[in-house]
Amino acid sequence: MAKGNLFVISAPSGAGKTSLVKRLRAEMAGLAVSVSHTTRAQRPGEADGQDYFFVAKEVFERMIGEAAFLEHAKVFDNYYGTAQSSVEAALARGEDVILEIDWQGARQVRHLLPGCISVFILPPSLEALSQRLQNRGQDSEDVIARRMNDAIAEMSHYAEYDYLVVNDDFETALGELKSIVTAVRLREERQSEALAGLLQGLLA
Amino acid sequence: MAKGNLFVISAPSGAGKTSLVKRLRAEMAGLAVSVSHTTRAQRPGEADGQDYFFVAKEVFERMIGEAAFLEHAKVFDNYYGTAQSSVEAALARGEDVILEIDWQGARQVRHLLPGCISVFILPPSLEALSQRLQNRGQDSEDVIARRMNDAIAEMSHYAEYDYLVVNDDFETALGELKSIVTAVRLREERQSEALAGLLQGLLA
Repeated sequence: MAKGNLFVISAPSGAGKTSLVKRLRAEMAGLAVSVSHTTRAQRPGEADGQDYFFVAKEVFERMIGEAAFLEHAKVFDNYYGTAQSSVEAALARGEDVILEIDWQGARQVRHLLPGCISVFILPPSLEALSQRLQNRGQDSEDVIARRMNDAIAEMSHYAEYDYLVVNDDFETALGELKSIVTAVRLREERQSEALAGLLQGLLA
Repeated sequence: MAKGNLFVISAPSGAGKTSLVKRLRAEMAGLAVSVSHTTRAQRPGEADGQDYFFVAKEVFERMIGEAAFLEHAKVFDNYYGTAQSSVEAALARGEDVILEIDWQGARQVRHLLPGCISVFILPPSLEALSQRLQNRGQDSEDVIARRMNDAIAEMSHYAEYDYLVVNDDFETALGELKSIVTAVRLREERQSEALAGLLQGLLA
């Protein structure tokens, strides 16, 4: 059984990452979801073990101490993290796993699993990004300005990624993400395992 | 202007490489043809500078002495080779170049241009390959047996390639080749040059 690949996808908020990954997962087989751990309160409609693993702060901090996380971050008062064991179990089953995380999480993952494939999604322009952030709701100008600053800070790390995709036309960007996943699956290291039987027959 | 990528594609004869590359070039923009040099006689219908650069043996051997070839080989009494200058000119223009060469040529190219991307195309089984080699014409069993041996010898080098594609269903294999070309074009090194203007605007 060929081991799966780990895909790390980052983007500034407003670049369309969540919608793209959702469609990617719906249209390509073999892409596993990684369920994160969090200490934030469970909201109505959320299922434990599906949306998140909801754990107490003490549990999360013990897991940090045990180096159980591939990446984790504290956002305001809440922890969020990806347990290494669950990702590695999926990879061992031959599933590909996608993690949607920011550049800091991506750095942590790259450090622990250097074979991961990282993709950064860019908006087609600063104006388009600003437009998308404003369309989200009735936020104040201050809030939008802060989001733009956060987005620019996130984008400043694009060069740390293996692939860059511009989300101008959604379907084009989706097709490009599919091509990346397909090409990675065709890499010799993966194929020589997946095709072990065929290769044995061909070279007999 | 982002520099082009060099794709090296090898396969045992009978695996369908020529038809696949022909369709790939027809359906994807920006894939340049590399015209080889040869010392073999020009055949009716062949155009110099289009099918091959037809040169005298002395010219070819002088070019070898000048290290003008990215790869070359002698097949029976004739030389065949890819001039480094013409490939590098196309790459410098931002075009991607595909070379259809055997594993020995691929090794030479990898040595001189380690950034090249190499793809090996496999048949779906030894039986299918044998079938395809027999369907080619009215060759003797001896000739077919020799071709099978050559094919197996070529296939024994699959592990030296970056990507493996199985040509079972033609359209699937074509789609996989397209995905490889697309993904390579999305690599950070290439995109950060191609998108220099956008990135400057986003991070201003």
